[in-house]
Amino acid sequence: MTKFDEATRAIRVDENTYDVCLDDGFAVGGPLNGGYLLAVILRAVTDASPHPHPVSTSAQFLRVVRPGPAVVALEQIKAGRTVAVTRATLIQDGTPQIETLVTTATLTGQAPEWSAAPPAAMPPIEECVELPQPGPESGMTLQSSMELRFDPPTVGWFTGKPSGRPEARAYFRLAEPHDPDPFVLALAVDALPPVVFSAGHRGWAPTVELTWHLRALPAPGWLTVYGSGRLIADGWFDEEVEVWDSAGALVAQSRQLARVGRG
Amino acid sequence: MTKFDEATRAIRVDENTYDVCLDDGFAVGGPLNGGYLLAVILRAVTDASPHPHPVSTSAQFLRVVRPGPAVVALEQIKAGRTVAVTRATLIQDGTPQIETLVTTATLTGQAPEWSAAPPAAMPPIEECVELPQPGPESGMTLQSSMELRFDPPTVGWFTGKPSGRPEARAYFRLAEPHDPDPFVLALAVDALPPVVFSAGHRGWAPTVELTWHLRALPAPGWLTVYGSGRLIADGWFDEEVEVWDSAGALVAQSRQLARVGRG
Repeated sequence: MTKFDEATRAIRVDENTYDVCLDDGFAVGGPLNGGYLLAVILRAVTDASPHPHPVSTSAQFLRVVRPGPAVVALEQIKAGRTVAVTRATLIQDGTPQIETLVTTATLTGQAPEWSAAPPAAMPPIEECVELPQPGPESGMTLQSSMELRFDPPTVGWFTGKPSGRPEARAYFRLAEPHDPDPFVLALAVDALPPVVFSAGHRGWAPTVELTWHLRALPAPGWLTVYGSGRLIADGWFDEEVEVWDSAGALVAQSRQLARVGRG
Repeated sequence: MTKFDEATRAIRVDENTYDVCLDDGFAVGGPLNGGYLLAVILRAVTDASPHPHPVSTSAQFLRVVRPGPAVVALEQIKAGRTVAVTRATLIQDGTPQIETLVTTATLTGQAPEWSAAPPAAMPPIEECVELPQPGPESGMTLQSSMELRFDPPTVGWFTGKPSGRPEARAYFRLAEPHDPDPFVLALAVDALPPVVFSAGHRGWAPTVELTWHLRALPAPGWLTVYGSGRLIADGWFDEEVEVWDSAGALVAQSRQLARVGRG
């Protein structure tokens, strides 16, 4: 069992209740990363579902979640031949923290009938850059659980040269040897620095809603994660992420609506 | 009160229950249009919420919904200063039909800090085309409740010349005089023919999940609705819709995951 599998483990208590232990290796300061938390929730959902693949997950983030024990409470809403629908709530200290609706189905892995091209050109991985690991005092443990190699202009903000538009693009994999799977994709869709950093913002940018779709099972190897946004207005921004696998297939799509950071 | 306001009316029974009467003027054959049903649900949600604007709505469509009486059952999940979160379920004949999570907030209407450009160039409205009204035997009443003027290549499928990629673009307004508002936008994000028609598919393409975000309150006048897709695979497709208002502002964004029609 890898560290990621261990950190996302969901232990069945009864058909609608799973115990989880939220791992301090996926923190962004004090709070835990939303994609990691979705991976944990999806472990419980898929374990209890008649279908193996979480094709559609929508989540509303109610509160900031911290490491420690928690419960995933399930309600089976529909169990059909093609899809099943589950309501899953992450509960910590007796309080709902994340409310989700998940559709599971069975992907067959056949070749796409039609696919768009990747949303941007990426330089080869050896021309991409890492950001320095933050010190332990930052509480940013997420970075040491994964590897990101950024398209250089999209991390210009780090050296005071933001590109001026919301964007972030990187190659992504877990820090440990672990092939991508749907749970890793849940992490990948929320793994980039907020795209508004490239538009000159900083600080904690809390996700209010995130929906992601699993479009295909990913091939082994690096993933490419393309992040962009369409509008920053009224203190809100959207972040679209596409994840492509090493075989050149679009494997996940997400959009989140978040608040611009105050930091 | 306009026909649309009447057709989306939600009558408070108690703080968590609203009676609705689903109107046969928004049907796509037998079933009702998903965007119309979301408008009905959002009437109940916003009436019961401390915040006026449905900034984020995610919906899982469980079953096909038909005209007639129904109930919107609410559960208040969070009521904060910035946002409130509600779970809303559309129930017909005692059975849940659509399961949603809605975040409400208060948009202030200030000018955007940053906006992308529209996703495609649209010809002027007088160069766009209407599709013929379907006959009454089709049960397609939705078309007579709204006006769509299509960018011609994106309805090439209608005369046997599909463009070969998932797309649909049109100017949109209600058939009656009625300024756009958040409820009209809920209809607009699901008002186009399925984008896969342009890729050669036909028939009823059931939405499994649809999430849309209200990004600004729309100005009066025609809306422009841009639909596209990124992947058709394994019997699934995604449909992205952006809605821009007559003042050139991005006012709504949606993505749905749907099944390719068998028709």
